[in-house]
Amino acid sequence: MDTGTVREILDAARVQGRAALTAPEGKRICDAYGIPTPREGLATTAGEAVRLAGEIGGPVACKIVSPDIPHKTEAGGVVVGVQGETAVREAFEAIIAAARAYDPSATITGVQVQQMLGGGREVIVGATTDPTFGKVVAFGLGGVLVEVLKDVTFRLAPVGTDEARSMVDGIRAAEVLRGVRGGEAVDTGALAEVIRAVSRLVTDFPEIREFDLNPVFATAGGACAADVRILLETGEVREPVRPPREEILRVMNRLMNPRSIAVIGASDTEGKIGNSVLKNLVNGGYAGEIHPVNPKAEEVLGRKAYPSVGDIPGEVDVAVFAVPAKLVPAALTECGEKGVPAAVLIPSGFAETGNQALQDEIVGIGRRYGIRLLGPNIYGYYYTPQNLCATFCTPYGVRGGVALTSQSGGIGMAVLGFSRTTKMGVSAIVGLGNKSDVDEDDLLTFFEQDDNTRCVAMHLEDLKDGRAFVEAAQRMTKKKPVVVLKAGRTALGARAAGSHTGALAGDDKVYDDILRQAGVVRAPGLNEMLEYARSLPLLPAPRGENVVIITGAGGSGVLLSDACVDNGLSLMDIPPDLDETFRRFIPPFGAAGNPIDITGGEPPSTYEATIRLGLEDPRIHALILGYWHTIVTPPMVFAELTARVVEEARAKGIDKPVVASLAGDTEVEKACEYLFEHRVIAYPYTTERPVAVLGAKYRWARAAGLL
Amino acid sequence: MDTGTVREILDAARVQGRAALTAPEGKRICDAYGIPTPREGLATTAGEAVRLAGEIGGPVACKIVSPDIPHKTEAGGVVVGVQGETAVREAFEAIIAAARAYDPSATITGVQVQQMLGGGREVIVGATTDPTFGKVVAFGLGGVLVEVLKDVTFRLAPVGTDEARSMVDGIRAAEVLRGVRGGEAVDTGALAEVIRAVSRLVTDFPEIREFDLNPVFATAGGACAADVRILLETGEVREPVRPPREEILRVMNRLMNPRSIAVIGASDTEGKIGNSVLKNLVNGGYAGEIHPVNPKAEEVLGRKAYPSVGDIPGEVDVAVFAVPAKLVPAALTECGEKGVPAAVLIPSGFAETGNQALQDEIVGIGRRYGIRLLGPNIYGYYYTPQNLCATFCTPYGVRGGVALTSQSGGIGMAVLGFSRTTKMGVSAIVGLGNKSDVDEDDLLTFFEQDDNTRCVAMHLEDLKDGRAFVEAAQRMTKKKPVVVLKAGRTALGARAAGSHTGALAGDDKVYDDILRQAGVVRAPGLNEMLEYARSLPLLPAPRGENVVIITGAGGSGVLLSDACVDNGLSLMDIPPDLDETFRRFIPPFGAAGNPIDITGGEPPSTYEATIRLGLEDPRIHALILGYWHTIVTPPMVFAELTARVVEEARAKGIDKPVVASLAGDTEVEKACEYLFEHRVIAYPYTTERPVAVLGAKYRWARAAGLL
Repeated sequence: MDTGTVREILDAARVQGRAALTAPEGKRICDAYGIPTPREGLATTAGEAVRLAGEIGGPVACKIVSPDIPHKTEAGGVVVGVQGETAVREAFEAIIAAARAYDPSATITGVQVQQMLGGGREVIVGATTDPTFGKVVAFGLGGVLVEVLKDVTFRLAPVGTDEARSMVDGIRAAEVLRGVRGGEAVDTGALAEVIRAVSRLVTDFPEIREFDLNPVFATAGGACAADVRILLETGEVREPVRPPREEILRVMNRLMNPRSIAVIGASDTEGKIGNSVLKNLVNGGYAGEIHPVNPKAEEVLGRKAYPSVGDIPGEVDVAVFAVPAKLVPAALTECGEKGVPAAVLIPSGFAETGNQALQDEIVGIGRRYGIRLLGPNIYGYYYTPQNLCATFCTPYGVRGGVALTSQSGGIGMAVLGFSRTTKMGVSAIVGLGNKSDVDEDDLLTFFEQDDNTRCVAMHLEDLKDGRAFVEAAQRMTKKKPVVVLKAGRTALGARAAGSHTGALAGDDKVYDDILRQAGVVRAPGLNEMLEYARSLPLLPAPRGENVVIITGAGGSGVLLSDACVDNGLSLMDIPPDLDETFRRFIPPFGAAGNPIDITGGEPPSTYEATIRLGLEDPRIHALILGYWHTIVTPPMVFAELTARVVEEARAKGIDKPVVASLAGDTEVEKACEYLFEHRVIAYPYTTERPVAVLGAKYRWARAAGLL
Repeated sequence: MDTGTVREILDAARVQGRAALTAPEGKRICDAYGIPTPREGLATTAGEAVRLAGEIGGPVACKIVSPDIPHKTEAGGVVVGVQGETAVREAFEAIIAAARAYDPSATITGVQVQQMLGGGREVIVGATTDPTFGKVVAFGLGGVLVEVLKDVTFRLAPVGTDEARSMVDGIRAAEVLRGVRGGEAVDTGALAEVIRAVSRLVTDFPEIREFDLNPVFATAGGACAADVRILLETGEVREPVRPPREEILRVMNRLMNPRSIAVIGASDTEGKIGNSVLKNLVNGGYAGEIHPVNPKAEEVLGRKAYPSVGDIPGEVDVAVFAVPAKLVPAALTECGEKGVPAAVLIPSGFAETGNQALQDEIVGIGRRYGIRLLGPNIYGYYYTPQNLCATFCTPYGVRGGVALTSQSGGIGMAVLGFSRTTKMGVSAIVGLGNKSDVDEDDLLTFFEQDDNTRCVAMHLEDLKDGRAFVEAAQRMTKKKPVVVLKAGRTALGARAAGSHTGALAGDDKVYDDILRQAGVVRAPGLNEMLEYARSLPLLPAPRGENVVIITGAGGSGVLLSDACVDNGLSLMDIPPDLDETFRRFIPPFGAAGNPIDITGGEPPSTYEATIRLGLEDPRIHALILGYWHTIVTPPMVFAELTARVVEEARAKGIDKPVVASLAGDTEVEKACEYLFEHRVIAYPYTTERPVAVLGAKYRWARAAGLL
């Protein structure tokens, strides 16, 4: 890569205050980064034109080059499809003659002789500067149909060769590039190389705001960009501020594992937030120091109160704010003087109500004193390993492996209610609200190294710094799943997001592709996010793609198969010997294959034998069970035998994901609860949900590189 | 339409035992049905060729016509792109000369002079004979991209002009036909006309098995089929047997409202099906006569038993079979002799276990005696208006407006459990099993005129007679929604269906389009089918497309908006005067517009005022409520005020669909139950489900022509 040439061109354009580069500049930049463009040259004589055409090979286009002739075609200055010595010579002479006739006083530089492209497939490679993610590279098929069908894919730049290849393979119409119905397969490697180079270029030169190669002609022999368009950022290019990881962790650790908490605005008055927060800290069982701060009281709820945070003896790790917005700046300054590292800002009345100035003020105070701010405009946060409930809601007691975060308070309340009703094991619930400072990537950085957390589920409407999020998520995903519910997915949804937080919701396709690049499991809706959060930490990671359905109800088997396809799961092709073994356990009219239909009237022993075989055969990697309520095998009998067989296998070191759909009368509900308690994901009255959960686990396992 | 010409061509082909028509025959058939094909003519002299080319206009193709020259191009017999008198004359002479040189002994009929097509868009119009639906017409864009992206749509033939237009508008890339990025809009009316004609043709002549116009060139000036391919059915074309509607109704009425039921195989032995069925009939509260049939008992469960159905005094409307499969034929024959009109065949051991012969035997007996058969291989059926539980499950007591049917027993059990746990109001639950006789269209015919049923939900894996189903569904849909869960949607799913019932699951795209054509609301999964069934009868029909979201949680508002787009709902553009009125009730920093964000800390009066306004303003047609659990407006307070305001509006004659998403702690669950009881569809911990239900109601309302 010849970065010197690019720097020179960009600097020259900047000096001239230009926001766009010319075509020749674009070509030089492409050359500098090894992006193929049409071969061409300038001929000043007919002989030179003939020589150039010979070097280029194939048909060429000849075009007048003159600073005085802007509209070449009008001046008779363009001849295309020229091939052979005579034809090239004639074209050269005709063009010069036409140009002279058109404007006798024009300075004629010569005739450009250019390789003509065509054939193969037209594709688009581009890069843009996304407000959320920064430099983003794009790939799609050219042509009007694909513009209509919006078949395009994005990645965070820069991309390596594998990621670039995943873009070429990732569009819906990828089959076209691999050659269909007699069409020739194109050189996808060459295309990936162009994508990689473009992504590198815009990363090396952030002032390139937009970059378009449209079209690129892709053929069996390579790829060549027929047209290049480059737009520049004329203003200042600012990089977001990113504290170093150690610094993030140092403060986040004090926030989540504090030894001492101050409640600013603690109150004895029932119904006040400062009353709820203090009570919840105490009743939740938090074992550290709790200091009420209230200038008007000696004591609050029987604890000594201090007039200011500065009066508290010893260090304070967290200050929870329960005072009106207008009182926050002064109290926050006192926290700064005291050296409090983290402030939890429950109050609303900041940017979300239009008071951006007040929010800017507290952000400034936070920066000045090095206080990290959670919120404002939040319900607070829970961290169950510390029995910590710094919220105005109610304590939550079921400890477990999932950390949940929400940008919206309402969604936070739904998280709490769902957790309670499903007895979901939770490590943390955190409100992010206006995200004036602490955001998702800070939390991911903490949860990544938090042994109490095995999975993170996040509701978000926007990302302050998409790139930092992707980096944090990519690190986390290697170890633990990250589930994301991105609200404002659709145009209408984004409009609502705009009115809610002032956040500019990005185009969903960009979010979708880049969240996938980050290894995130995206939940299509709130309920799915909650169900994935509940179930993913309970399921072991699958070790391979072979999924087997064992069902007592043929009808469930069909629906479970549908759900497998919907969720990108592979129904294993059962090898003959395994099929034979399964057949030994099921009636002759039952269907082996996959789904394995053990038929409806079977006793517990049939379920037991087939499930055991499914667990013990090492070629099978995950089981989906379809239970049919009968008098012969009642729901709790099925639940108990399944849990027992699964636990026996675990005792032998076999831990495969097992999910179940229970079709039956209301007794199946209790059976599902029992199975959940034994780490078998089971749902009544649905064939879709257990498979969707398994699909989410597989998406994570693939992203984590486990498969 | 010149049906005489078509009949003549088809008869000639049949006589010759041909399965395909020639291109000239295809062209004559197109002409007969007004399908435009290229203008052409046969020239025997150069002069004639020139005259023809002049008449046709534009460039023409010239092709040798000779019975002895099958490969025209090889013989130098084709010249394309010919324009102008001299060129046509030269082409004619060159072709004749080349043909003579190629085969001096060949008979030369002349030279075909044909209009050359091109420009515009290439599309495909076709028709095929689907095993489920019979004649089906298809439309899609031509070209490799669309073949890859499978952008094609189907309808049951014949279609009228509106339906044909809906096909042209219904493909994903329809925008291309309307003209994009400088491309010219094509004459979609002419395309629709071609589709209509093709659908008419294959309907008039069922022996046309497949019909392809590929490509059709669509331009601003019209549509012209460049190539036609017609394949014929050489075997016998059989029409399915369809009893007249009155006959179906007569028997179905006796099945659902019987005065007398015989239980064949009634037993005193606990655990036997014949014991369960008899007990359930008695315990369910069925008020008609119940006659046990058992040759080995004087009495069963204290009731007089008869050795055979023939011994029962008086008429018997329904015979429920609870005997092993092998005993069915004899007992069914006795029912025939007795004149029983309907047999409910619970036993398994027929086609589903491979015993097709036994199933054919009972179907034969049914036909011979005019007995309609439900099953075999079913759990039985419920009809709550008669307190009728003729199943081996348990009675179900919550009467209501929804009738549910399932092809699979396991799914039937899930229907029962879900119904019980949600207290769903049910009119009927019917098992269809092997569908040896009675199928979905018989049931639809009954439910259409059954005042106890307001909505039908059907689980099905295949349709025996897709066309009869569509006709019954179209009649029903005008009055009441039909929800369908079609299992075996996917390739993998269809494979499972094949192994389950021997049913040939059709291609899902055909099912999807034709079920929509039938006005059916398709449920994407089991749980959705059950939720739609539960909710649709409770919601009033919307009177227009203007949906408004009123939310206390901005975060829910964003997710509810996303869900509106996903479900094809239109968020109303709130007019300024209405916006002004809403603003009067909400805090200044709340967002009017749509969603209307009343903000989180508001008292009950704000919810009440805004909901009342939403109900009373006639420009708003449906409300989606987002509730956020707060101490100021607790869940039950929200539920009660909402139910009250909705009921006040109903008392004034305003009945709009209202759905709600409740975000909060577990108390929201009780609030949702309360709202359901007051016909407000409400769910906790999900923003998607209430909107999906409203979307389903809208899909029905549109199909019923109410909007």
